[in-house]
Formats: sequence, structure tokens, C-alpha cells
Amino acid sequence: MSVLRTALLQSSGRPGDPAAQLAALGDAARRAADAGARLLVCPELFLTGYALDEDLHRLAEPADGPSARAVARTARETGVAIAYGYPERDGEQVYNAVQFVPADSAPATTYRKAHLYGDYERRWFTPGTDTVVQARLDGLTVGLMVCYDVEFPEFVRAHALAGTDLLLVPTAQLHPYEFVAESLVPVRAFENQMYLAYVNRTGPEGEWDFVGRSCLAGPDGTARARAGRAEELLLADVDTDLLAAGRDRNPYLADRRPELYGALTGRA
Amino acid sequence: MSVLRTALLQSSGRPGDPAAQLAALGDAARRAADAGARLLVCPELFLTGYALDEDLHRLAEPADGPSARAVARTARETGVAIAYGYPERDGEQVYNAVQFVPADSAPATTYRKAHLYGDYERRWFTPGTDTVVQARLDGLTVGLMVCYDVEFPEFVRAHALAGTDLLLVPTAQLHPYEFVAESLVPVRAFENQMYLAYVNRTGPEGEWDFVGRSCLAGPDGTARARAGRAEELLLADVDTDLLAAGRDRNPYLADRRPELYGALTGRA
Repeated sequence: MSVLRTALLQSSGRPGDPAAQLAALGDAARRAADAGARLLVCPELFLTGYALDEDLHRLAEPADGPSARAVARTARETGVAIAYGYPERDGEQVYNAVQFVPADSAPATTYRKAHLYGDYERRWFTPGTDTVVQARLDGLTVGLMVCYDVEFPEFVRAHALAGTDLLLVPTAQLHPYEFVAESLVPVRAFENQMYLAYVNRTGPEGEWDFVGRSCLAGPDGTARARAGRAEELLLADVDTDLLAAGRDRNPYLADRRPELYGALTGRA
Repeated sequence: MSVLRTALLQSSGRPGDPAAQLAALGDAARRAADAGARLLVCPELFLTGYALDEDLHRLAEPADGPSARAVARTARETGVAIAYGYPERDGEQVYNAVQFVPADSAPATTYRKAHLYGDYERRWFTPGTDTVVQARLDGLTVGLMVCYDVEFPEFVRAHALAGTDLLLVPTAQLHPYEFVAESLVPVRAFENQMYLAYVNRTGPEGEWDFVGRSCLAGPDGTARARAGRAEELLLADVDTDLLAAGRDRNPYLADRRPELYGALTGRA
């Protein structure tokens, strides 16, 4: 048996002030380390804020930019791996990205949101083109995704097929879609027999109202820990025994009939 | 706006006694008609019972066998379309099937369960090879599936892509998997923006303990009606306005990225 304690930082922080966000991230990583956590997950666009319009482009940085280097220092100093959302600049393109930063100075891994949500995101971001982006942490395979991505069962299934044990999903999830946090996310964990860390912003921002309700969902379909609407550093354990027992009892991957799913890869 | 009132017959009845089951089906159809329902849905293997071992083969009938003709008479006399589970014989093969019988003397439609559950079903049944089997009822596209099939998100997605409005899922759902009835089924309805009628057996039978909890799940992710563990004829409405509004607000099918889902059709 092994347990990976995970810290979920439910917070919107100070939108438009990356320096303040880096400070908050450092503080959260130290608290996570003190609590025995090996991983800290922050929300979508945590580094900058969500409702920033053109400032999303002004504040966007390359995957190896100064903020990424600051986060890497924090991970190294605290011994806690960190996943956080940020606007990634690559030439003229800006992506809604999440970066996974190991604590051991190994290279970071960036994933670019593939399913953009609504007109706002389509205006400011280029959609990503990768399906499964993974990293390794303490013997587990960690997968990366952002918010709306997780609502597509096909996309999470691709991670299960590629062996993801723990899917990290920074999010910016809105009222009145609490159903997604409360019901859809635990069902995704169950039907794919994985853990899923869904980490949300909270409170009003521009025209949006983020609903918190962050959770670590387990392969048994329960929220192993669940936040309310307040800012919170939520702690929960990923337990490899529970993962193995669940996969034994619910052999969904083995019982699939992929020869019957051809319609899913064509245009609707 | 149009509304299709649907009756869900949660009952195990008398396993091993098809004549009694046909009588119960006739009674339920008359009660459904009196309540204004246009459709009656019965559980998996309703015609014979589930825990019958070799009797499943002895009692299996062709899709146009005497029991099917009796059900067709009931549908015609009551004006209620009927979907029911039965073991279907086709030469040497026996399938775990569901038959949809229109009330207007049009031909019946049979679907054969594609995802067999566990060693018991694999021993007694041949798996089906069709993905999407549909029929039309009062302007709606009705899809057919059986029990474990619905736990595979790929399979339900194929129905959504083919335009299913109301998915009928006769089931034989066991303790301790109440999570499937309570959480997974409403999430399937939400993520595919369809209605889903999940109709279960209830009570002990052989080594199994069926859990009831039948529901009509709506595209808003709620159970529009939900049974407990008792035998019950549950009534609920399929509302095309709710369907249209949900699809407008949650454009999952339009927002898919099918070019990223290639892994789903290969072998795991």
C-alpha cells in the first residue's frame, strides 16, 4: 500500500496580480508540506485570474517563463509537486494551460486545454491538440486536464486507457453548474477507476460566479474530501490499495467493446 | 411542446413463470394507459426472470415467438408501446435482449445486450454486435440498451450522436452498486442531453439482490421520478421543451473534438 497525500487549493486569490498569486502559491505549498502532502493542485488560470479579457494575453508567459521558474523553486524548496493553471504564450498563440512541476528538478509538463468553454474562451485562447498528457509522481501516473475537458467522457476515457491513476483538473466552474462538481466528477472517477482532483476557483469575478465545491473523487465514486464555497486548502489521500481493489471489482476497461465505438471518432 | 408520459414497471414478478409475467405486463399496460402513459418499460429478462441458469435457454423464444405476439396484442389493445427484457433464441444462440413493441401494429425492434456482466451472463448469453438500435415513438427517437451497457460512456455517446432522445434501459442492478442507479444514470442523461429510463428488478433472486431505485433521468441531470425498493409502477414525463432547452445550454455534441478520441476505438 502507498498513499499520496494531495492538497487542493480552492482559491481565486487576486486576479490580475501574478506576484500575489505566486506568493499565495508558495504559502499553500509550505502548508501542504507541513501537512505531509506530496502534491499541490491549484485552479484554472490561478496565476493570473480568469475574467481578465485582453490582460490574459498581456500576462501570458511561455511554459519556461519567469513565473514557471518561480513555481519550480517553490516545488524544490518545499518538496511538493505543483500543478497550476496559467495562460501560456507560444509565439502568437495563447493557450489555457496547466503546468505540472515536479519537486525534484525534473522538467515540467504542460497541457493545453482542448475543449474551450463558450465564446469567452474561444475569443482569448487557442485550443490544444493533445489528448493525453501525463507525468509520473511517486509511482503513480498523473494526468492533466482543464475544467470543461472533464465533462467529455471520451476524453477522460482516453486517460484511463493510457493508465492515468490520478487526473488533475484545475477548473473555473460556474453557477448554476454545481451538478458537474457534485455528480459528474465522482462518476468520471468511478467509470474510469481512477482518482480525480477537481480544484475550483470560488466567488464572483467579473460576470462569473465560481462555485468552489472542489473535491478529490475516488474510484469508488465518493468524494474522499469536498470543499464548500469558502477558500480552503483541502487535504485528501490517494490510496493505491483502494485503486487496485476498485479496478478488480469494476473491470470496465477489460469489458469494453471498442469495435462498437467507431462513431465516436467521426464528426457528429 | 410535447410530453410523452412513460410508465416504469419496477418488479421482478415470478421468475420462471412467463405466463404470470405476461399477465403482470398486461395489467401494468392497462394501468399505464389509465394514467395517460404512451410507453411502458419493464426490467431486464422480465419475461422469464434472471437467476434461472439453464432455464434461460429452455424459456428463450425467437423475437417473433408466442410471448412477443402476446405482448404485441397487449400494446395494440391498450395503445401503450412496450419495452421488455427477455432471452432471445436465434438458432443455437441465446441473447439477453430487449424488445420494443409499438402500439400501432408496426414491427417490433429487438436489441441484444452487447456488454455482458460477469461470468454468469457470459456463460448463458452470446453478446450482441450492434451499437445503436432505435425506434420512433410520437416524434421521439427511442434507443434500446440493457443494464451494464449504460455504464460504458462510449456506448451511450454513440446513441446521442445518432439522435436518441429517450434511452430505454431495462436492468438487473445489484447491491452494492446503488451508485450506478443513483449517480451514474443521471450523469449519462446530462452529459448526453437525453432522457434515460432505467428500470430495475427488485428484491432477492438466487444469489443476487436487486436494488430497485428505477428512475427517469432528465437532461438536467435530475431524476424526474425515482422509485425506492418496493415494486412500483412509476410515472414520469419526457418533455421536449426541457430537452431542447438543455441541448441549447449544454452543447456537448457540438463542442466535442472527435479527432482527439482515436484511442477509444482501439484495443486497450
